[in-house]
Amino acid sequence: MKRGFLSHDHSDKLFEQIYDYLLERIVRGEWKEHEKLPSVRTLALEFNVHRLTVFKAYQLLKQNQKVYVKDKSGYYVQPGSSLPVEARLDPIISAYVQDSHLSEIHQVQATYQFSKALLEPNLLPNLYFSEYVKKVFDLYPKVLGTYSTTQGDLELREALCRYFVQRFRFYLSAEEMLITAGSQEAIDLTARVLIKPRDVVLLERPTYSPAIDVFQRQGATILPVEITENGYDLEQIEKLMQTHKPRLFYLNPTFHNPTGYTVPTEQRKRLVELAAHYHCLLMEDDSYRDMYFGEEPPLPLFSYDTSGVVVYIRSFSKYIAPGLSIASVSCREPIMKLLLRAKSLSDSGTPFLNQKIFLHYFFSERMQQHLEKLRIALSVRKELMEDEMRATDWQWSSPAGGFNLWVKLPATIGMERLLGQCKEKSITFVPGSICDPQRELKSWIRLSYSYMSEQQLREGIRQLIRVYEVEKERSRKW
Amino acid sequence: MKRGFLSHDHSDKLFEQIYDYLLERIVRGEWKEHEKLPSVRTLALEFNVHRLTVFKAYQLLKQNQKVYVKDKSGYYVQPGSSLPVEARLDPIISAYVQDSHLSEIHQVQATYQFSKALLEPNLLPNLYFSEYVKKVFDLYPKVLGTYSTTQGDLELREALCRYFVQRFRFYLSAEEMLITAGSQEAIDLTARVLIKPRDVVLLERPTYSPAIDVFQRQGATILPVEITENGYDLEQIEKLMQTHKPRLFYLNPTFHNPTGYTVPTEQRKRLVELAAHYHCLLMEDDSYRDMYFGEEPPLPLFSYDTSGVVVYIRSFSKYIAPGLSIASVSCREPIMKLLLRAKSLSDSGTPFLNQKIFLHYFFSERMQQHLEKLRIALSVRKELMEDEMRATDWQWSSPAGGFNLWVKLPATIGMERLLGQCKEKSITFVPGSICDPQRELKSWIRLSYSYMSEQQLREGIRQLIRVYEVEKERSRKW
Repeated sequence: MKRGFLSHDHSDKLFEQIYDYLLERIVRGEWKEHEKLPSVRTLALEFNVHRLTVFKAYQLLKQNQKVYVKDKSGYYVQPGSSLPVEARLDPIISAYVQDSHLSEIHQVQATYQFSKALLEPNLLPNLYFSEYVKKVFDLYPKVLGTYSTTQGDLELREALCRYFVQRFRFYLSAEEMLITAGSQEAIDLTARVLIKPRDVVLLERPTYSPAIDVFQRQGATILPVEITENGYDLEQIEKLMQTHKPRLFYLNPTFHNPTGYTVPTEQRKRLVELAAHYHCLLMEDDSYRDMYFGEEPPLPLFSYDTSGVVVYIRSFSKYIAPGLSIASVSCREPIMKLLLRAKSLSDSGTPFLNQKIFLHYFFSERMQQHLEKLRIALSVRKELMEDEMRATDWQWSSPAGGFNLWVKLPATIGMERLLGQCKEKSITFVPGSICDPQRELKSWIRLSYSYMSEQQLREGIRQLIRVYEVEKERSRKW
Repeated sequence: MKRGFLSHDHSDKLFEQIYDYLLERIVRGEWKEHEKLPSVRTLALEFNVHRLTVFKAYQLLKQNQKVYVKDKSGYYVQPGSSLPVEARLDPIISAYVQDSHLSEIHQVQATYQFSKALLEPNLLPNLYFSEYVKKVFDLYPKVLGTYSTTQGDLELREALCRYFVQRFRFYLSAEEMLITAGSQEAIDLTARVLIKPRDVVLLERPTYSPAIDVFQRQGATILPVEITENGYDLEQIEKLMQTHKPRLFYLNPTFHNPTGYTVPTEQRKRLVELAAHYHCLLMEDDSYRDMYFGEEPPLPLFSYDTSGVVVYIRSFSKYIAPGLSIASVSCREPIMKLLLRAKSLSDSGTPFLNQKIFLHYFFSERMQQHLEKLRIALSVRKELMEDEMRATDWQWSSPAGGFNLWVKLPATIGMERLLGQCKEKSITFVPGSICDPQRELKSWIRLSYSYMSEQQLREGIRQLIRVYEVEKERSRKW
């Protein structure tokens, strides 16, 4: 049964909710063929609604041939209405199969994975890691025997707070921080506690694809906000806030995934003001901040927030230690309380071991030096890829940081076909439509330069261009 | 502060939320009688609201005679506004008395924690752990740079499958297993994908308290199933299945938490048959299996399932390595598909490092030998506690495994008061009502013997009995 059944609100008619409730159970086989269904009177009592409402639901079921009436004695299950036993769980599944999801593309095994916005494991200081972890075990001999608290290791939270305060002028205490197992958990938990069905949520267009999935699952009404090289159209945002009173805006303003764009400082300040004014929470996802190629990016939105509207999600997994899965969520007390409650039900705390390793590793001098090397390695890869692409008719803006190029192909290219052909050559990329809350942007693709060696990258992009040229030729002929 | 403080929505006016916030603290006695309350200006800053909003809250408090104004200098606590001291439970405890959440009682710092069904860190082979992890890093030098797949490390899943097949005659492949970050995540994910509002769910009475919270959050209609030393009343269960068509039965049939009971083999077989017949899924939580003191317990329900109705959740965190947080969920394809989808949105895979450490550690000879020592250590602790309790008028059945004693006290004892008094002596336990879906069982308590040294355990139980005797005396006089 749909959430909000008992809410008696106007947007979903009551009889439709009762219809859904009955239909789902008929399909699931809770009543067998020719079995008598509960009477109108019983259901009216159970759901505390007028009998006519239940009657209307049954009428619709009858009209749709899910039930039949017999001798005025009641409603019975029409044969063929339920699924065969072995497929009975499938109605829920089929709801998912239709959409394409990033996680599914990632399951494709390919030699040239332009689809993965992850760091190539060789780019991490693996030897140093190993030595390092051994030291951590000497420091905390009982680390594997210890449960974490729900909120996360206090030593880690305090260290991260100091770091945020010093670097970004945050006003923040350890009580206002939660440690999660990566940014995905942070986004998921936050969405779960803040978003109810039919809440309006703003998402950048394009955006981080799993975020679309999360907010859709929450039943949110999603409105797109265009993001360009120059940031947002703040007038558009203000109009959206005014008209639709969104509950939340999920955004990724620094080396944005997939575009690589960065929202300028002045817009950040103004956006926080707007959000405070219109009571719209800002979920700021800051996963690529340290991966800049030129100047450091502007301060996070959280730095400018004086009214508690920003929830700051900072992932470290992507370029520090993917195998650790550590992220932090910073927000004010009312939201933190909700998060803690949800976290305690969802996994009773991020693994302690991972937090301790991360704590010592992240704040080590070696790690900070390594970040500098990483930036260089990534910018070299990016330039290498751009050089190879120069001769094509593709369009893109060169990003100043992050892992991805957001590339526009001529509209004549059939994207599904191109992806299919690429997969046959063991090449994957992310089609733009996956990143679009409206599932359009069909001429765009996301190419990540982070997951391959320079040699692989050069070879991969050449092959990709070759597949593309064949497809282009083909589309010309047709 | 209440949920939705920042929502600024229409249903809870801001000033009412501030009113609630102040009132709650006044009642709790955070400010004494005639004490000056924070100024309007301070609160307006703290909550980021307009001063008029705070002013309105104070006006309402004044009107309701909770505060008074003096010489325009500010607001003061009206005498009689707070609860009498003896009724003023510790805020944390009173919160869980109303809401009953295990996670909250775990936040109470105490010397004698009979409330924690966790292993004392000294009972783990910590030195061996450290050496071990170093070896794992040598084996997988890039482990920290690697993301896990959503489903979990294939090597680990294959090893666990082989183990389950050999030991429990499971019919199981690696595709039918998901690795989660502990059993809490497993329960939460499974409930999220299978249970919709108003679905009927059967829970044992008593049961694992966070499971109640999870199913309540899903909006399930919860029906209790009594569990005794002899297992279930299968006729009662069949009647429930027939009448209420439950979607799922969450159960913990082996060294059940909190009672320690184990459901006999014949009942397991029959229960699986009933579940298949009535299309009721069985969520089998098997967290204490290896902690037997005599014979090995009966095979899991999953061993007898030929129709795919059992979801088998096997946690290893509790006695292998709490700091790792590793559990496995075994089930058939339709449910696995749903779980994978939910897992990919909730954290994109359990940390890789933890899976690799667990894999090598769990299957090491040393670990298996250690389990034997652990069983002995736990049974010694259990007997020690029972010896100390022998002289009381408490009732319990000696469990054949697990971490807990489920103890019945005379009905005359006021449980909230007893807990309050215990807390003052730095003793915590879990009141039975927390473990009861119906929030009754007020004469029962759960005492865990796993989290303290023998000496602490002896001292703690003596002190607990002393507090109890005083309370008993007191209840006699009244």
